[in-house]
Amino acid sequence: MSTSSKIIYTFTDEAPALATYSLLPIVEAFAASAGIAVETSDISLAGRILASFADQLNADKPVENELAKLAQLATTPEANIIKLPNISASIPQLKAAIAELQAHGYNIPNFPDDPKTDAEKDAHARYSKVLGSAVNPVLREGNSDRRAPAAVKAFARKRPHSMGKWSMASRSHADYMRGGDFFSSEQSITMPKAGEVRIEFVGRDGQVEVKKKLSLQDGEVFDSMFMSGRKLREFFEKTLQDCKETGVMWSLHVKATMMKVSHPIVFGHAVSVYYKGVFDKYHDLFRELGVNPNNGLSSVYDKIKSLPDSQQEEILHDIHDCYSDRPEMAMVDSVKGITNLHIPSDVIVDASMPAMIRSSGQMWGKDGKLKDTKAVMPESTYARIYQEMINFCKTNGAFDPTTMGSVPNVGLMAQKAEEYGSHDKTFEMTADGTMRVVDADGKVLMQHEVEAGDIWRACQTKDAAIRDWVKLAVTRARQSDTPAIFWLDPERAHDRELQKKVEATLQECDLSGLDIRIMGYNEAIRLTMERLIRGKDTISVTGNVLRDYLTDLFPIMELGTSAKMLSIVPLMAGGGMYETGAGGSAPKHVQQVLEENHLRWDSLGEFLALAVSLEDTGIKTKNAKATLLGKTLDKATGKLLDNDKSPSRKTGELDNRGSHFYLALYWAQELAAQSEDPELQAHFAPLAKALSDNEATIVAELSAVQGKPVDIGGYYHADPQLTSQVMRPSATFNNALAALA
Amino acid sequence: MSTSSKIIYTFTDEAPALATYSLLPIVEAFAASAGIAVETSDISLAGRILASFADQLNADKPVENELAKLAQLATTPEANIIKLPNISASIPQLKAAIAELQAHGYNIPNFPDDPKTDAEKDAHARYSKVLGSAVNPVLREGNSDRRAPAAVKAFARKRPHSMGKWSMASRSHADYMRGGDFFSSEQSITMPKAGEVRIEFVGRDGQVEVKKKLSLQDGEVFDSMFMSGRKLREFFEKTLQDCKETGVMWSLHVKATMMKVSHPIVFGHAVSVYYKGVFDKYHDLFRELGVNPNNGLSSVYDKIKSLPDSQQEEILHDIHDCYSDRPEMAMVDSVKGITNLHIPSDVIVDASMPAMIRSSGQMWGKDGKLKDTKAVMPESTYARIYQEMINFCKTNGAFDPTTMGSVPNVGLMAQKAEEYGSHDKTFEMTADGTMRVVDADGKVLMQHEVEAGDIWRACQTKDAAIRDWVKLAVTRARQSDTPAIFWLDPERAHDRELQKKVEATLQECDLSGLDIRIMGYNEAIRLTMERLIRGKDTISVTGNVLRDYLTDLFPIMELGTSAKMLSIVPLMAGGGMYETGAGGSAPKHVQQVLEENHLRWDSLGEFLALAVSLEDTGIKTKNAKATLLGKTLDKATGKLLDNDKSPSRKTGELDNRGSHFYLALYWAQELAAQSEDPELQAHFAPLAKALSDNEATIVAELSAVQGKPVDIGGYYHADPQLTSQVMRPSATFNNALAALA
Repeated sequence: MSTSSKIIYTFTDEAPALATYSLLPIVEAFAASAGIAVETSDISLAGRILASFADQLNADKPVENELAKLAQLATTPEANIIKLPNISASIPQLKAAIAELQAHGYNIPNFPDDPKTDAEKDAHARYSKVLGSAVNPVLREGNSDRRAPAAVKAFARKRPHSMGKWSMASRSHADYMRGGDFFSSEQSITMPKAGEVRIEFVGRDGQVEVKKKLSLQDGEVFDSMFMSGRKLREFFEKTLQDCKETGVMWSLHVKATMMKVSHPIVFGHAVSVYYKGVFDKYHDLFRELGVNPNNGLSSVYDKIKSLPDSQQEEILHDIHDCYSDRPEMAMVDSVKGITNLHIPSDVIVDASMPAMIRSSGQMWGKDGKLKDTKAVMPESTYARIYQEMINFCKTNGAFDPTTMGSVPNVGLMAQKAEEYGSHDKTFEMTADGTMRVVDADGKVLMQHEVEAGDIWRACQTKDAAIRDWVKLAVTRARQSDTPAIFWLDPERAHDRELQKKVEATLQECDLSGLDIRIMGYNEAIRLTMERLIRGKDTISVTGNVLRDYLTDLFPIMELGTSAKMLSIVPLMAGGGMYETGAGGSAPKHVQQVLEENHLRWDSLGEFLALAVSLEDTGIKTKNAKATLLGKTLDKATGKLLDNDKSPSRKTGELDNRGSHFYLALYWAQELAAQSEDPELQAHFAPLAKALSDNEATIVAELSAVQGKPVDIGGYYHADPQLTSQVMRPSATFNNALAALA
Repeated sequence: MSTSSKIIYTFTDEAPALATYSLLPIVEAFAASAGIAVETSDISLAGRILASFADQLNADKPVENELAKLAQLATTPEANIIKLPNISASIPQLKAAIAELQAHGYNIPNFPDDPKTDAEKDAHARYSKVLGSAVNPVLREGNSDRRAPAAVKAFARKRPHSMGKWSMASRSHADYMRGGDFFSSEQSITMPKAGEVRIEFVGRDGQVEVKKKLSLQDGEVFDSMFMSGRKLREFFEKTLQDCKETGVMWSLHVKATMMKVSHPIVFGHAVSVYYKGVFDKYHDLFRELGVNPNNGLSSVYDKIKSLPDSQQEEILHDIHDCYSDRPEMAMVDSVKGITNLHIPSDVIVDASMPAMIRSSGQMWGKDGKLKDTKAVMPESTYARIYQEMINFCKTNGAFDPTTMGSVPNVGLMAQKAEEYGSHDKTFEMTADGTMRVVDADGKVLMQHEVEAGDIWRACQTKDAAIRDWVKLAVTRARQSDTPAIFWLDPERAHDRELQKKVEATLQECDLSGLDIRIMGYNEAIRLTMERLIRGKDTISVTGNVLRDYLTDLFPIMELGTSAKMLSIVPLMAGGGMYETGAGGSAPKHVQQVLEENHLRWDSLGEFLALAVSLEDTGIKTKNAKATLLGKTLDKATGKLLDNDKSPSRKTGELDNRGSHFYLALYWAQELAAQSEDPELQAHFAPLAKALSDNEATIVAELSAVQGKPVDIGGYYHADPQLTSQVMRPSATFNNALAALA
């Protein structure tokens, strides 16, 4: 047994951080039995702030930059990191955290909105590195491996979530551009050697404007493409006319949060086409007021508040008039009258489309009824898979969670593999001309004729990331004995470049006995679904966008949610990062704890991640006890799900702490029941007995504290002592656990 | 040059026979230039009757049995047969032909309806061999090769037929059983050696009834399957309820003419489920009257005529009442109020589904409007391809004849390859029990538990036919440089047996450079359609049912009709049969000739068949002149289509004879214009000039005779002299042609 193994458990923010106070002692106690140390790494917002000003704190002991250390660890083969959700701080969150830390006596500056002095500029620069999504990009040093854990899948089969029935006569469908979009203009090259490239705009007058300079690596794939603004508007108009004629509801599905440069523009065109009458009539006024359709109809409502009442009323009246010429729109909130076009972030394609497909292909109308819908997704590249699934459901009925197979995903994500999100290389054209990519010798590598209003973008994917992704797919196919399909569209320039690398890399792999194919998206999803309804699993091996889409789409059909998926990042250097859960760090949960001492946070993601982390440790360090801990933890999680011991949302009922107790109970029972490792059996038998004997007492102790407010001495930087007391209120449980050591 | 080549041109009946009087002299004159003799073979109804009584005719020269000779020729490598449509005689047609021949002085007996004497029995036996489909079965000694000729395809691209627009919001779909049908019960075996099998029914009491004894060949594929009558009725009820709920029109698509045992039963269940109220209420009365739902609702109307008016009215009232509980039904004739369920032969799936798909997925409602429709096709085996195409059209819009590719077919047809049409091996169960297939040793090869009302059937396919079919597919793929897909469903027992033979036979073939795949039906049609809309051709290599369905489905999309397809039967012995046209021998056309001397028959099928016949002669006998004649004929046919020189339906305008003149003109011009063969160039230049110079005169001569009745001295056995005069009225044209020799 190796005693040098170490699991890093990240300490983050809000609800996951609170849960950690309860769960970590259990994890430490169990892991110790296999000689595994569990260390925390503080990558919380407060921790990162303090680390940024370590030199100014005059602290007793030096504050280390734990994120930097962790990022360094991620590039070594030893990395075994359990990564909990953390805050991607907005400026208001950052300011609140600063104020709290200052109140706790830390000597840190305010956040300067408008830095003037050198000190302010320095502070601003340091805080900028803390803002936004600052953790994932530095830790995700690998591709993505996502799958439904066996326990979760078994639970969904036994207790299926609801699935709306599909009618063969459904009118719902996904509609997309047939030309003029990114798909139809995509060009792609592979760099024959490392070198500089320039992205240039050449105006009709011959003037050259350098938009961007980049250093590309040897073998890097570089794409360029554009969407025609004019054709996009024509397309929107056509879809609206079509819905008006057919009586099908209209809905828009984009991902303005993620594709944060291009999709708000696309969304804005939808708004100004739907409300064309209003945007034409008030063109000058709206410009004066600063109305931006890219921010949705709500931007109109906001900006016209400065106008006299009578003028506001006229505009509202004109908005209302638009509805008579336009088809009914899918609602986000039919009670509040909030439509699909209200704000750009309400309807996010990767969540909204699975929801629609799960609801019989329908969305909510303004009368609060589900209705057949045209799902408009202008970019055709990925939209086609939704139409394929809709046709499939029309033909074969809704998926059946009790019998369907599973679709794990291996996604190309390492080294910031881009397909969207190339925010620094996306441009909205302000004039007609030519966009081109030119190499250091002045050779034009790619070019497009563009018009004002077109959206042009470029994307980069690194050679090493692609090769690692291919090998990960082969490994996953081998380890799970499951066929794998590379989703590569032969009609897509980017995918053709990738396919060459995939084929070359596959030749280096041992493929004996494996079923690995390369197929276009339509064929790939179709075959995957045909297998799915016959109970068969198929690994989808995809680019970054399909990784994002498919790891919502299939899990929502299979499990009712994507939050229960295992999300592993096998790091390129050989280590592993195990991400837990999705959907942020749940500030509302903290509120409930402070007011009622009930934590509804579900640590299922942590249980699942920990099990894989233990199993991987077992394999990598030849530690059979670790493997056994992982296996028994999975069984315990399954039992927990079966026995309904997940946290309730209601104060007074079992909460996060109670579910941790049951996890410990079941885990100890599994270990006590197995005979593979008599040492572990003997070690855990007393704990299993103690917890089992005292179940009623412990549950009562955990329940007794609820219903009253508690103080944990902070929000972003809570007091560890106080918080631990709050999160570990059962003396009986604590003592039993302590007796294990 | 081989001078021994010979093309057999069949002499048949009615319009094609009349057209032959005009066309054959042209064909003979042109073919002679390549040393090819054109001989006729009289397989007309009259000819076959006379041959049957050759021994009793006391004719000057012996009347030969030309069909028998032709059938013999078909089994030799020399066969080169152009087969025109002929009469499949019904009894009334037979009697009319007999009367005419008797009037012409032939000593043949009457057709005895109820033969008593030995002479009558002998006559009945002889006439029985003349009745019905007596020609194709004896001549079709090969598999099927059907494709759109280049000239026809080019014409359709230039002058596309109308195609209804598809809406993405269309509610139309194809619905089929998900269990309980032939597909889900199919079993299949390959005979390890030749032997006898018995089809037996074992009752619940253990009684064994031998239904059929068969001698199977070594390697023969033998299938058995059944459709549950109970599940079929449940399925119909479900589809009716679904249409009632969704407001989509209901329609039934079967092939009661071809699957003449099983499909009338299926159809009958549809009738008695739709009109359940009436059939339940009048159960006993209908039985007494002999109402048979398998003959459609019209059977009710017919049979109740014997009842008193008041009772008739009551029943009609009750029929009418059914409509209020049932969904709207697709109409065959909305003016006359004739629905889909009126008679079993009105809606034939292989024609009705392409028509629906071509009409935006809609059929006619009772208000004379096109409406979205549920196309009910109980048997799922083939129905799925229509749903696939419907989904495809919803997603990609209607096919575009101006840009789409083509789908030639290589069909398994030889040696009566069965998939349906196993009329002698189809049984409707009258009791619960077991149907089984037992070999000579008493070993049970296949068995099914059945209930009364189930439809059980067996099918045979011969090994040699399958191997020939595979080789034909490879030959076609090579000759047309086109990918070929074997449509074999891995989930279908019959196809799995076939696949083994296909794979074995492919191994014997030179596949270098060919793209030959084996795919399930859904994947096959999907890939074919994806290629189709990109202008790419794909050969479909299918069994007998899909041969029948696909050679209507794709041609109707591509060409607007299946009548313009080349239909070749490469005979297993090495010869070739070239079938021309489809749709019978057109008695109405003859009527118009007799009354107005205008023949609207379009000989396009003959032109196309002749071109292939010439090309094949060229290849087989290394006769370059024949090849060139074929090539130039194809060009001439293309020009004829382009210049609108096909026959008009209107008397006074260009008719069949005029189109033959233009064919001769263009053909001669093509030959005069080419430089590949100077001899042929010199030979045809004067004819080209003569016909071109005299175009106006000849057209005028051909037009002048029209508008008056003519006498051709008979109908089934017209006078050759008189008919030839009628069909060759232009002296100028006749002289020019005569000068060629």
